[in-house]
Amino acid sequence: MEHGKPGESKIDRRKFVGAAAALGIAPQIAPQLRAAEAPAKDVTRTLANYLVKARYEDLPAPVRKEAQRTLLNWAGCAIGGSRHETVDIAVAALAPFSGPGQASVLGRKEKLDVLHASLMNGISSHIFDYDDTHLRTIIHPAGPVASAILAYAEYKPVSGRDFLNALVLGIETECRIGNAVWPNHYDIGWHITGTAGVFGAAAAVGKLMGLNQQQMVWALGLAASQPVGLREMFGSMTKSFHPGRAAQNGFTAALLAAKNYTSSDQGIEATRGWANTVSTVQHFSEITGKLGQTYEISINTYKPFACGIVIHPTLDACIQLRNENKLTGDQIQSVNLKVHPLVLELTGKKTPQTGLEGKFSIYYAAAIALMQGAAGERQFTDKLAKDPAVMALRDKISAAADSTIRPEQVRVVVTTKDGRKLEKYVQDAIGSVKKPMTDAALEAKFTDLADGVIPAAKARKVMDLCWGVEKLASAGEIAKAGAA
Amino acid sequence: MEHGKPGESKIDRRKFVGAAAALGIAPQIAPQLRAAEAPAKDVTRTLANYLVKARYEDLPAPVRKEAQRTLLNWAGCAIGGSRHETVDIAVAALAPFSGPGQASVLGRKEKLDVLHASLMNGISSHIFDYDDTHLRTIIHPAGPVASAILAYAEYKPVSGRDFLNALVLGIETECRIGNAVWPNHYDIGWHITGTAGVFGAAAAVGKLMGLNQQQMVWALGLAASQPVGLREMFGSMTKSFHPGRAAQNGFTAALLAAKNYTSSDQGIEATRGWANTVSTVQHFSEITGKLGQTYEISINTYKPFACGIVIHPTLDACIQLRNENKLTGDQIQSVNLKVHPLVLELTGKKTPQTGLEGKFSIYYAAAIALMQGAAGERQFTDKLAKDPAVMALRDKISAAADSTIRPEQVRVVVTTKDGRKLEKYVQDAIGSVKKPMTDAALEAKFTDLADGVIPAAKARKVMDLCWGVEKLASAGEIAKAGAA
Repeated sequence: MEHGKPGESKIDRRKFVGAAAALGIAPQIAPQLRAAEAPAKDVTRTLANYLVKARYEDLPAPVRKEAQRTLLNWAGCAIGGSRHETVDIAVAALAPFSGPGQASVLGRKEKLDVLHASLMNGISSHIFDYDDTHLRTIIHPAGPVASAILAYAEYKPVSGRDFLNALVLGIETECRIGNAVWPNHYDIGWHITGTAGVFGAAAAVGKLMGLNQQQMVWALGLAASQPVGLREMFGSMTKSFHPGRAAQNGFTAALLAAKNYTSSDQGIEATRGWANTVSTVQHFSEITGKLGQTYEISINTYKPFACGIVIHPTLDACIQLRNENKLTGDQIQSVNLKVHPLVLELTGKKTPQTGLEGKFSIYYAAAIALMQGAAGERQFTDKLAKDPAVMALRDKISAAADSTIRPEQVRVVVTTKDGRKLEKYVQDAIGSVKKPMTDAALEAKFTDLADGVIPAAKARKVMDLCWGVEKLASAGEIAKAGAA
Repeated sequence: MEHGKPGESKIDRRKFVGAAAALGIAPQIAPQLRAAEAPAKDVTRTLANYLVKARYEDLPAPVRKEAQRTLLNWAGCAIGGSRHETVDIAVAALAPFSGPGQASVLGRKEKLDVLHASLMNGISSHIFDYDDTHLRTIIHPAGPVASAILAYAEYKPVSGRDFLNALVLGIETECRIGNAVWPNHYDIGWHITGTAGVFGAAAAVGKLMGLNQQQMVWALGLAASQPVGLREMFGSMTKSFHPGRAAQNGFTAALLAAKNYTSSDQGIEATRGWANTVSTVQHFSEITGKLGQTYEISINTYKPFACGIVIHPTLDACIQLRNENKLTGDQIQSVNLKVHPLVLELTGKKTPQTGLEGKFSIYYAAAIALMQGAAGERQFTDKLAKDPAVMALRDKISAAADSTIRPEQVRVVVTTKDGRKLEKYVQDAIGSVKKPMTDAALEAKFTDLADGVIPAAKARKVMDLCWGVEKLASAGEIAKAGAA
């Protein structure tokens, strides 16, 4: 398995969240929304009403721009993951039951019905755990939503503008619903990307299908009855199944509702509705407050590095040191890291044997960042984990926990064999909301993921289509261009 | 809508359960299983190991017989519900995405891929809430399991014996898992037929596919990540969606696991596994205790009447009085019922306007039982609810709550216009474990449900195939015979 096992090991993800919160990204949103808690009444209908009425023309320019970035990052992840054995198995197992070849699987040759295509693209985009992250809830927002609407857009004509609007609204829906039950819902054991994601897919496909308000209410109700994903599945192929199945379930919900298949009118907020059943906390004003005024996609983030977020400051610092000093591995005598204590707790593995284990080793990660100037999926392979030069450098790296260092920070000191002391302090790691990846960095990540999967010219075309999505007469072009 | 709305109104179903427990059916199973609580270790693997090894030859004769009865009752319900608009809508919405016509939809002409056929048969069989009931948990066991394996049996050759074994094992799986989390899981808001049903379908299809132990563990894990169904959906079409989607999800889980799509090894029992995530109580010994020694299908029950179980004693008494005395409605001066207080609380509606409302009126129900000698789906129609003769008799019926009467009992006194006093006391209502429906009564119920949907000769053939399932070279014959 070239890229190591999919998903992540059974580490306590709440600690990543703590780190994310400490990275200073999320908390500023919460207080004003939570100030006046709305009564649990008409939550589903209020959301549905907004979804039915919201227009592309209402979207602020920065929101549209962030949606392009989200789309491009997601497509790159889906293409990059598409040849993983996880997708091979899912396609082999389910293709015999697929309907007509209505939609593409990014990075592959198969055409499947829209529901199965949604599933496969959702699986593929999450395999490396490298997709976008809404750091307030650690939902990976694009997977469930983009997988569903891209399949739909190949099946029925959808303009690029409508597509972008549906993407924004789907992400708005799942993240607001996630905000309402966070963090208890996740703590209980749910993989929130799958559980909240179903709503996002239902809302987005429902929007493209032109559901009326009552139908949208029913679509959300049908979504409520189909949550996907336990955290217990982390570390197995089933983790990637979650966003895919969420896309498929939400798509199904919209299809049924469009024909007036009825469900509850209070699927989200009822006493025995979704929020009360799957969580011990419910902040319904997170769903209904400031609709059309705030956009959760605005705080979407993209991982520059294919590993847990607590290592990101170190990787950022090491890559900067390497590039600024033209460092090579064999020039290095020793490396000393001062990190937040959480880093050692979560990623303190000294001698990782596989690429996946490397994602949980601050030593390995720093070594490959110094040697290769990158920490993408290609840097976390079983082969590199056993490479003698990488292992040699890895063993020269020490890390000290320092409680004066915050999780978003790091201090790295490289001592070279010729006696230089090179130092780098990182205040905010690249990829955070405060220091987002540039468009160029997103393109480089995409190119790296697509390399070897689809030809460079096709990869270029997909990126151009993502940046220019609003000009497209048919958003389905993106899927056609991204297929092998 | 001829048969009224599907599902049931938003009554507190826990009270039905209380009634069911009081009907004396379930509790005798619980104590010995719960005496020694097994540690939460290898629960999923222990169950998987049993499922992989259990043979048809191991099944006691009464278990095989009960499986035939379960199958026949389920097939009748599926055929009976198949022309309901709920199924029309689901087929119209999803058929465009169906794969090859691998399997039949009972009572209909469409052929769909096995996954969609499972969904449709599961929906259809639950529409009238008239399917089988495992009274300990109020799981409707056949829907998720039979829908999935009948579709499979049309797709791949399955002997009748293997089919029966898979049916028993699937029901064993879902009911044991249900027992482990009951009642808290249901109280929290989950529709246990959908949530536990996924495991039943995965186990049964996995058995037919010949999964090895590890694959069965993964199939159960994939099932764990796909629970279906909130009680909030009761009263809408989505209630019937739950057993159907459970069948489809479980089938999907087995297909993926058969190709070695990995999931957790402790999907059911892990700290963040299914049981801890969806319930506040976990009795894992209910899953692992006495495997192969006790069979939950042995306590499966079938409703003789198409309404809530608390009315059943009254219906039983009224039908007996009518038949024994050749009563007609116009001979009756008055009717007095002595019932458990719960009956009036749950079904005290005096003037129901629709067939569905009639299911929640002890007065209406007693009237149609006295007039027609039956209380099937055909007796709960909007037309009959507004029939002047029915309304006249209904208004002559009084009911008094009497705390000395237990929920499974009733005392009915009919006073005729010619001055006779006819009295009937029912100690255990027909349809309970203590007084099960006879085979002949199950056939009559089937015939009534199938009437007008498939020709009588076909209905006869389906029943014969169900009774003789163990002799079939191909169990798929049942599906072919039951299709329109």
